[in-house]
Amino acid sequence: MPTTTWNRHHILSLNDFTTVEYDAVLQTAASFQEVLSRRTKKVPTLQGQVVANLFFEPSTRTRSSFEIAAKRLSADTLNFAAATSSMTKGETILDTAKTYLAMGTDIMVIRHREAGVPNAIAQEMDRLGVKVSVLNAGDGQHEHPSQALLDLFTICTLIDPANPRIELLKGKKIAIVGDILHSRVARSNIWSLTASGAEVHLAAPPTLLPKIFAEYFSEETTSPQRQLFLHWELEPALRDADFVMTLRLQKERMTAHLLPSLREYHQLFGITRDKLQLCQPNVKVLHPGPVNRGVEISSDLMDDPEFSLIQAQVTSGVAVRMALLYLIGSGKVSA
Amino acid sequence: MPTTTWNRHHILSLNDFTTVEYDAVLQTAASFQEVLSRRTKKVPTLQGQVVANLFFEPSTRTRSSFEIAAKRLSADTLNFAAATSSMTKGETILDTAKTYLAMGTDIMVIRHREAGVPNAIAQEMDRLGVKVSVLNAGDGQHEHPSQALLDLFTICTLIDPANPRIELLKGKKIAIVGDILHSRVARSNIWSLTASGAEVHLAAPPTLLPKIFAEYFSEETTSPQRQLFLHWELEPALRDADFVMTLRLQKERMTAHLLPSLREYHQLFGITRDKLQLCQPNVKVLHPGPVNRGVEISSDLMDDPEFSLIQAQVTSGVAVRMALLYLIGSGKVSA
Amino acid sequence: MPTTTWNRHHILSLNDFTTVEYDAVLQTAASFQEVLSRRTKKVPTLQGQVVANLFFEPSTRTRSSFEIAAKRLSADTLNFAAATSSMTKGETILDTAKTYLAMGTDIMVIRHREAGVPNAIAQEMDRLGVKVSVLNAGDGQHEHPSQALLDLFTICTLIDPANPRIELLKGKKIAIVGDILHSRVARSNIWSLTASGAEVHLAAPPTLLPKIFAEYFSEETTSPQRQLFLHWELEPALRDADFVMTLRLQKERMTAHLLPSLREYHQLFGITRDKLQLCQPNVKVLHPGPVNRGVEISSDLMDDPEFSLIQAQVTSGVAVRMALLYLIGSGKVSA
Repeated sequence: MPTTTWNRHHILSLNDFTTVEYDAVLQTAASFQEVLSRRTKKVPTLQGQVVANLFFEPSTRTRSSFEIAAKRLSADTLNFAAATSSMTKGETILDTAKTYLAMGTDIMVIRHREAGVPNAIAQEMDRLGVKVSVLNAGDGQHEHPSQALLDLFTICTLIDPANPRIELLKGKKIAIVGDILHSRVARSNIWSLTASGAEVHLAAPPTLLPKIFAEYFSEETTSPQRQLFLHWELEPALRDADFVMTLRLQKERMTAHLLPSLREYHQLFGITRDKLQLCQPNVKVLHPGPVNRGVEISSDLMDDPEFSLIQAQVTSGVAVRMALLYLIGSGKVSA
Repeated sequence: MPTTTWNRHHILSLNDFTTVEYDAVLQTAASFQEVLSRRTKKVPTLQGQVVANLFFEPSTRTRSSFEIAAKRLSADTLNFAAATSSMTKGETILDTAKTYLAMGTDIMVIRHREAGVPNAIAQEMDRLGVKVSVLNAGDGQHEHPSQALLDLFTICTLIDPANPRIELLKGKKIAIVGDILHSRVARSNIWSLTASGAEVHLAAPPTLLPKIFAEYFSEETTSPQRQLFLHWELEPALRDADFVMTLRLQKERMTAHLLPSLREYHQLFGITRDKLQLCQPNVKVLHPGPVNRGVEISSDLMDDPEFSLIQAQVTSGVAVRMALLYLIGSGKVSA
Repeated sequence: MPTTTWNRHHILSLNDFTTVEYDAVLQTAASFQEVLSRRTKKVPTLQGQVVANLFFEPSTRTRSSFEIAAKRLSADTLNFAAATSSMTKGETILDTAKTYLAMGTDIMVIRHREAGVPNAIAQEMDRLGVKVSVLNAGDGQHEHPSQALLDLFTICTLIDPANPRIELLKGKKIAIVGDILHSRVARSNIWSLTASGAEVHLAAPPTLLPKIFAEYFSEETTSPQRQLFLHWELEPALRDADFVMTLRLQKERMTAHLLPSLREYHQLFGITRDKLQLCQPNVKVLHPGPVNRGVEISSDLMDDPEFSLIQAQVTSGVAVRMALLYLIGSGKVSA
């Protein structure tokens, strides 16, 4: 592992991540990516530590990714799934978290359909003066930091596999397309990508991208390098783009009359080989999954290794989550 | 580990536990509590053994506690959850247990909503002449031995951390408050606490504590030291009490017209800082969890480290369950 | 482990298994059966490898058996249960499988209620040129190879524990009784048992055993030794049988008017001690479980160790699944 200075105890949001922190994640993940290519993909780093996956909202993909990451660091894992649990009956979420704390959990990976739950738990842990770390695995429409970090890692290792670092994205044009209003993935990506010095172009129908959206990000930053652009049409976002990130479309959005039809949505905002003609010739497409084929992206494009980074993202996910668990977990041991 | 003589093969009930057995659990748990404070909280004791958590009734807290205990002893764990299982379709519970036996399970941790299921399974295992052990993790309204043992451990280590033993409770006054009639936790605690020589005072509304209740315990014991008192009011139970155990109130009880309202219940039997004035100055409060804040106990009291042992109970739970798995599991290996 | 040559990458069906392959499974399973009788039942063979149990159809028995097998080979396991998963929402099964591939899964154990799903996933993996192996854990009414292999192992180790091999069944008479039409267990067993040179006699009511059934097997084989006989009555199948395999009766079959009543079914096709008088004196009975006592088999016969191999089958299951994971998994490592 590279010797990095890492002082962050919880990973809740990317809104105040520093360049040094982004690079620490990228470089640590690169080391683990190398471990994952070996015959024995396990390291003893977190042996004897307990990683509890507290998923108050159903998830398979993210939960499995964290579980495999924890196991490859030799940690013991506990899975809590709200659906099959009697635990939250009349018990507050903070009490559930404190129970896992009292059982000896070292790292809590938390997903909840309400924004702010991981923060509230982290604050309570700090108030109690305990060493447990909280990792936000997606909270409502707020943030999904590990997803944005794995997206960043996927892109940076494509540009420079030997030395992925955030400055590689400086001046790149990145389009984020789809249901931006409801997307925690978009929010976390906007923080990391604008921090990198990239130009970030958002494209969505006006119902999914209100004008006021950008203010949230512009208000909270003084950095002159953050460049965020909004479009209600796809074309200006795609033009000369280096990377295109499509977002999963929740079909419930249509019932809520925010969208006319899946077919029309695909016609206007679905990514296809044709539309990619507008981009840089070596453009790449990302999607956090699971994909609705033929809606957010055409089926053939999704499977085209020349353009699609979707499988690479999943693989990056394990390496990045190992890095996050390592960075916050190994600090704990040495403390 | 202390060298203890341990001959019990299953842990189903505390009704015939001996002083020697209680002390063996307390001292073994104390050793594991020490292991849990180390950097690496794992010991290889049960490596290669399989602990199957057969939870026919949903549970997260107890199941996670047993799972973490088993993993810290390096056992492999299997989780069976009736809710998501196709197994019991047309198959008897004994056949399900025998299937886990045939797969090589060494210890079965069993929860079922019917009283007596763990006993029935243990009897069947003995009849078959096999070495598998059964641990009752809560059966109907019958018993929940590991909960009572962790309560005992929590209290005894508070009195003498270096040398917890059951005689420390001799002459102490302990109040158990709440839905005693329906509580397997109360039943197991009555066995252990009266066995210790403590004075045990039960307090509940008459609907939740019928007069006949005490007979069950008095009939089955000849020991002159067992002192059990029933109260339909809180005050006499709390007066000069050293420890107060509150019980979880199932909200279903109200639908069954056994209780007027949660508000009135809290007024009459809820534990508050005010009511604790009746007790010994250094009184402590316990609750098996999950807690309905503001019903069985006031929210501020629950969080007050001066009075509340609730978090300590959860931590004790892992050490005590490691002790139980160790005592019945390591005997098996040497057999 | 015996040094065997093993070239099969996926285990999807037994229809083209060779004698050499059957014997490799039997001999490897015998070695693991020996490991399972030791104090420490674990071997480091698959350390660092990931076995993902992708069960799109609920299962406890088979899933637990594969999980314990994987853990005893020191593999890390991931459990995917469609019931509690948000993963397949709008995502194709192939995409789900590719996600687990991208996370670093080495072996996928797949159950699905549709025939052909494991094959389709295996084909896709081969098309992608990746090394992941697919193990069919039951697909629709098609096949359940690991069940048939554990049945084979159970029978062969009974005949010659020191050296189980498929030729031991040559000339034996084996009856398969019950809902053959809908049984993937029957289909896999027909391949293995006819391949062994045994006489295989199927017995079921005509609604559950149409005449055309045998053609499927006769068409696909040119081997003169395959001997398959159909009966619409139990008696000719049982007469002088060495082994009787009963199949689980799905109660849904009755709603579909394929059966008159469970009582009549038991009278005509249920296996009882009386009916076994027709068989060889040392006849043994098998059942894949879970058993409907008093339907497919009488309750007393099921528990009679003189006749019943049902518990032995479950134990064999772990050894055989360890063998399968070992054979396809260790090949991968050396590749």
